[in-house]
Amino acid sequence: MSPFAQTMLALGLGLGLCLAGGSACRSEDASPEASAAAIGRAALDDMTPYRTVESLTTEVGQRLAGTEAHARAVLWAQAKLKELGFENVHIEDFLITAWIRGAETATVTSPAIQQLAVTALGGSVATDPNGIEAEIALFRSYAELLASPPGSLAGKIAVVTQRMVRAADGGGYGAANPIRRAGPSEAARRGAVAYLLRSLATDNHRLPHTGALNYQEGAPRIPAAALSMPDADQLERLAARGKVRLRLVLTPTTRDNAPSWNVVGEVKGREHPEQIVLIGAHLDSWDLGTGATDDGAGVGIVTSVGRLIAALPQHPRRTLRVVLFGSEEMDNSGPAYAAAHADEAKNIVIAAEADFGAREVYAAQLPPGAADSAFAKSLSEAIAPLGAFLDRRPALGGGDDMRGLQKAGVPVTSLRQNGLDYFDTHHTADDTLDKIDPKQLSQATSVWAAFVYLAAETDVDFRALAAAAPH
Amino acid sequence: MSPFAQTMLALGLGLGLCLAGGSACRSEDASPEASAAAIGRAALDDMTPYRTVESLTTEVGQRLAGTEAHARAVLWAQAKLKELGFENVHIEDFLITAWIRGAETATVTSPAIQQLAVTALGGSVATDPNGIEAEIALFRSYAELLASPPGSLAGKIAVVTQRMVRAADGGGYGAANPIRRAGPSEAARRGAVAYLLRSLATDNHRLPHTGALNYQEGAPRIPAAALSMPDADQLERLAARGKVRLRLVLTPTTRDNAPSWNVVGEVKGREHPEQIVLIGAHLDSWDLGTGATDDGAGVGIVTSVGRLIAALPQHPRRTLRVVLFGSEEMDNSGPAYAAAHADEAKNIVIAAEADFGAREVYAAQLPPGAADSAFAKSLSEAIAPLGAFLDRRPALGGGDDMRGLQKAGVPVTSLRQNGLDYFDTHHTADDTLDKIDPKQLSQATSVWAAFVYLAAETDVDFRALAAAAPH
Repeated sequence: MSPFAQTMLALGLGLGLCLAGGSACRSEDASPEASAAAIGRAALDDMTPYRTVESLTTEVGQRLAGTEAHARAVLWAQAKLKELGFENVHIEDFLITAWIRGAETATVTSPAIQQLAVTALGGSVATDPNGIEAEIALFRSYAELLASPPGSLAGKIAVVTQRMVRAADGGGYGAANPIRRAGPSEAARRGAVAYLLRSLATDNHRLPHTGALNYQEGAPRIPAAALSMPDADQLERLAARGKVRLRLVLTPTTRDNAPSWNVVGEVKGREHPEQIVLIGAHLDSWDLGTGATDDGAGVGIVTSVGRLIAALPQHPRRTLRVVLFGSEEMDNSGPAYAAAHADEAKNIVIAAEADFGAREVYAAQLPPGAADSAFAKSLSEAIAPLGAFLDRRPALGGGDDMRGLQKAGVPVTSLRQNGLDYFDTHHTADDTLDKIDPKQLSQATSVWAAFVYLAAETDVDFRALAAAAPH
Repeated sequence: MSPFAQTMLALGLGLGLCLAGGSACRSEDASPEASAAAIGRAALDDMTPYRTVESLTTEVGQRLAGTEAHARAVLWAQAKLKELGFENVHIEDFLITAWIRGAETATVTSPAIQQLAVTALGGSVATDPNGIEAEIALFRSYAELLASPPGSLAGKIAVVTQRMVRAADGGGYGAANPIRRAGPSEAARRGAVAYLLRSLATDNHRLPHTGALNYQEGAPRIPAAALSMPDADQLERLAARGKVRLRLVLTPTTRDNAPSWNVVGEVKGREHPEQIVLIGAHLDSWDLGTGATDDGAGVGIVTSVGRLIAALPQHPRRTLRVVLFGSEEMDNSGPAYAAAHADEAKNIVIAAEADFGAREVYAAQLPPGAADSAFAKSLSEAIAPLGAFLDRRPALGGGDDMRGLQKAGVPVTSLRQNGLDYFDTHHTADDTLDKIDPKQLSQATSVWAAFVYLAAETDVDFRALAAAAPH
């Protein structure tokens, strides 16, 4: 008998007897709190999350939205959800503009030839096939770029080498995000012909970090790429010595109306199947690595939670829905899902996405007004033995793919993961399976499982708690 | 006054007054042991080693032997040696077969397309421009490959994924070296059409480690490349699932009779200018990174030692010769130097190369028979305050470029550096300046300086000590 079944049996959930064809398949013997704790404990010993990431990253590898590889990942996901015991496994399609990486090189041509490690930002336009060569204008802070007057960068390649701050909650990424998202248009407004930034990251390897940009209305669209940390350092040193010229070659292409898919599986609720606890992760990845921590880990977490819930002697009262989003990195799948499910939003009790790597969950943040609820107390007790605490501050967001639902009024939760080294490998070729510690991933899954079980089994009403909360 | 000059002054070497035009420029006031200790202490505070590496890696960058970049490095080195106070600065030319990297890609074509991170081994022949596609035969140990019978790899791409062991003294590299050096020919003898190995390294990044191979007589020359660690892992997992096909593209080229140069500078001995203490490092680097730890660090160490010695109130009795070798990575410069200086070998008192990174020197190994000498006692006392000890085991080698001299009877010494993480970045794109801790580099330089001063100032005769030693 598996440790999982043993634990369930010992706790009176009767799974062992159920699986053996016995008659003790009732859960009334255990309170929701005890069951949540038992599921959490069982998850701690469950290697399914790691095995799932191993399968995805080995058998599919990278799976950039809009590519043949992502289509393979969708087939993989449907098969995996069925294998893990989900019901109603299906795909929901939508259209995207696929962005496909091309050649990408940057060469210092003066004072002497040196190759730099760069990678195009997602959504970047291409340079001329022979590249663009120009003198650089280097800014050690983004504020300096923003302070430079219109026209001051005419004909130049703007380079911003500001460093992102390492922080356990990943706060440095949010603070630095405009450098990548808005920087290209800000530089273009000032006359720049191309844009480079120090990767938004915390490592010191020659592996640049990609990520999406957002061109702004009214600004010319210029090619943009990220430098690895050592290359940003090198440009700082070269620029301190005198003028530097660069040749940048980026040849990405785009394809309009490319198909993408969200993959969905459910564990139907036994009493209120129409009430939905929605958890997600994104199946797409950037194309440089194999998307192990971003977001294979999230896929491993939410699908393993579903497996644990589906294997219970009886389903929780509410439906658990797992959504594997198809185009998070280019910001397409969350809006597509929210648009397709606008009428259903009112039935979604709570929503959350696992998309912050593979390390341990150390805290849970609930929607506004829930911190003093009976639910919060139950959750706090269930996750304490798993190594997590209730953070009384309300969740600000539930993950990138949840923004559309959140705007539509769906309450969101945030299970906080240790992200101290998440941005060492995030969006690079280095995002590979070896970066994952299976035990930490199982711990994260255990907290998710306890949360999901409680949300699906109890009658917690996060909307009502928020409405009753003092403003 | 600099900390260096202050230290010298305080210890009666009178450098401060000498530099100020005073008359106290005699060293008789201090014993060789005291002077060695003082030079070592001064070196601990000297940033010249780091500044030298910074200059080389920033202004020149990579400097593969046989390329225009290496020729620029040679100009840089001549100017730097003069700037640092060397005499008799000159170059000594020799001819090499230059090997120039081309395109290098590896793609899993079956069961599904995935890109792998690879880099050609130095000296590898090229594939067809369109690459070579074949099924792989994967061996988790090199011994398994060697045990496979002739013909058993016919038409296959042989892959060896054995792991190199991490060890502070770098011993894992020597043990694993045949996998890279001899593996291609061993695989070819068994019918393989190409060869891949897990990089000889200790990191887990997507940056493969290059390095030279040695084709053996009588074996077909097949293309050979190194996989990054995560890619070797990936092939192991894929091979465990079934047949794997790969397409390998490598397009390096060679150029015969390419010029290369050893760059030499000296501090002439005041009593026995014909007796030579020879220390070296190699100026060439692999082309992927900027050769910061391999061997910019060594260049920083030996040139800074020379600067310290040259700045003394009076030169040591013997000549210090610094040689910056021009083609260590492809094994050309050591033999060229030994051949050109065969007649002079008898006058070389001791020889050693700094070529094991930028971390601290923790021990010194002397030639056979010297461990109980007065020299060893003096050295032990001089380096103890610097954080190093005398290792009584004899030095087995003095560095790759010293092998020819050693064969010609020149005694060699080995100043042992902490190499625990040396093979994390060795021979990769990641060998960049940020990997160097300036203080550790200065400490290494301090032990070198103390050793060199004692060897040049005393009448130690390592040949006589070796001859008198019990066998």
